[in-house]
Amino acid sequence: MPIYVVGHKIPDSDSICSAIALAHLKNQIGEPAVATRLGELSPETQYILDKFGFETPEYKTSYAGEKIFIVDHSEVGQAPDDVADATIVGIVDHHKLGDLTTSTPLECWIRPVGCSNTIIKQMYDFYGIEIPKNVAGVMLCAILSDTVIFKSPTCTPVDKAAVEDLARLAGVDDIVALGMEMFKVKSAVEGTPVRDLVKRDFKDFDMNGHKVGVGQLEVIDLAVFDSIKDDLQADIAALKEEGGRHSVLLLLTDIMREGSEMLVVSDSADLTERAYGKPTTDGKVWLEGVLSRKKQVIPSLQDAFK
Amino acid sequence: MPIYVVGHKIPDSDSICSAIALAHLKNQIGEPAVATRLGELSPETQYILDKFGFETPEYKTSYAGEKIFIVDHSEVGQAPDDVADATIVGIVDHHKLGDLTTSTPLECWIRPVGCSNTIIKQMYDFYGIEIPKNVAGVMLCAILSDTVIFKSPTCTPVDKAAVEDLARLAGVDDIVALGMEMFKVKSAVEGTPVRDLVKRDFKDFDMNGHKVGVGQLEVIDLAVFDSIKDDLQADIAALKEEGGRHSVLLLLTDIMREGSEMLVVSDSADLTERAYGKPTTDGKVWLEGVLSRKKQVIPSLQDAFK
Ligand SMILES: [Mn+2]
Ligand SMILES: [Mn+2]
Repeated sequence: MPIYVVGHKIPDSDSICSAIALAHLKNQIGEPAVATRLGELSPETQYILDKFGFETPEYKTSYAGEKIFIVDHSEVGQAPDDVADATIVGIVDHHKLGDLTTSTPLECWIRPVGCSNTIIKQMYDFYGIEIPKNVAGVMLCAILSDTVIFKSPTCTPVDKAAVEDLARLAGVDDIVALGMEMFKVKSAVEGTPVRDLVKRDFKDFDMNGHKVGVGQLEVIDLAVFDSIKDDLQADIAALKEEGGRHSVLLLLTDIMREGSEMLVVSDSADLTERAYGKPTTDGKVWLEGVLSRKKQVIPSLQDAFK
Repeated sequence: MPIYVVGHKIPDSDSICSAIALAHLKNQIGEPAVATRLGELSPETQYILDKFGFETPEYKTSYAGEKIFIVDHSEVGQAPDDVADATIVGIVDHHKLGDLTTSTPLECWIRPVGCSNTIIKQMYDFYGIEIPKNVAGVMLCAILSDTVIFKSPTCTPVDKAAVEDLARLAGVDDIVALGMEMFKVKSAVEGTPVRDLVKRDFKDFDMNGHKVGVGQLEVIDLAVFDSIKDDLQADIAALKEEGGRHSVLLLLTDIMREGSEMLVVSDSADLTERAYGKPTTDGKVWLEGVLSRKKQVIPSLQDAFK
């Protein structure tokens, strides 16, 4: 019976690449493992897998009676729906500690770094297992994605050191060029249904009893949103009603300008004022220097709900 | 502001020695840290600290506004009462994943091994920090205690390898002799109030909504309990009522005979029948081969409450 390695719902590149990289490591140390996923690949992730020659991991939503290794989160809400009927044998993550619990001992590799793949790199080192060229490639891309090519405040020296090693192993000379190519793929929003864009990297949070959805789209130039911004605003308003949410926030992040425009629909008119000291005008607010949802958006928001 | 390294309530030797060993490591890597404790030392722990020349860590129950590193558990109920007002920066543990959560990223070193100090040994190796002779001594003793000198089914090859390294560093030639000396101290129950014995290593568990307390006393020869067994039975019955518990179980573990006599008071007359396939007679049941509360007692009990 293999261990299924699976990331969060609405998987990002880190979730998919972590599953691939960790499943490979587990197989090398004599623990049969299979990478799976809980949702569709984003164009960025598809680009990464194509570039390094990987098949899309199996789409699998039911894990009852199986052993699973969770990557890139530790939240019940982000886990398979039947996680309570599975045995969690391990967790690799770099977020706050969530509400997953187990009834048996397990291994948790959780570190305050910029990307789960940085931790998986440490696991390879711990076990003394060499990282194949194509695995190193997807790990490298995941770190560049999560750290916004080192610009995110979540990026640590450990992430940079991992990227250096992985680039050598993957035979990548120009890290920044690879990162920019990836973000160009991410920036191509034309032709994508608005709802798909809103939900591409969308997470619901429980804020002191209120359901708050926060999405993020990272692009090289915010101008790509000019023609669809009204539609995005209308769609997050609809999403708020459909899900019985208190608020829905959509971060349009300009990775070159290093800041985010936040689109806001909320039951609290002064939410961004209380959380970030800046009022919402016409459903929008510019947050200078804000690149990281996890580090720069969620904590202040949580405080605002206390 | 230092990081306070603190184990669980009613600290065992692993909790205290983990706090000491991890605080030392943190100080070596430039993160000022202080070992603290949430309760009185057991005679075994006192023996270990005396033997290797350590002061008793500071008794500290309030951590509001402080940074804390939790060792040897991940449960709200085992943590400081005001843990919600502290910042948990890390967790080292070898039990099932509990219900602690955080609002910020942290480091978790959780492994399915026999003792938290085995994991701290891995942390020393990871950071390339040498373990001083006296620190190695208390780490060694904690592992011998938690693994019942390697006899517990929770003991893994990783624990044995750590003990080998630590014994060399501590200058201990005869590991088994040290372990037996320690368990002799643990076996001295004479003169200790019955309630102190019952609560010496006592944990409350939430079993599907029912509060179940399970204590354990590990001795070299169960004969030490002959004259006080009636008193122990009366006391766990009292403890059951006082705490509004569904059941209180007290494991009297004979580490030489490798089994446990379980004293039982419960609202379910057939509890041990359902959990272990053996009925309770006169409030007692012998469980052959059972040394580990965590691995051999709690999981079946949890299943019996489903
Ligand atoms: Mn990630
Ligand atoms: Mn322990």
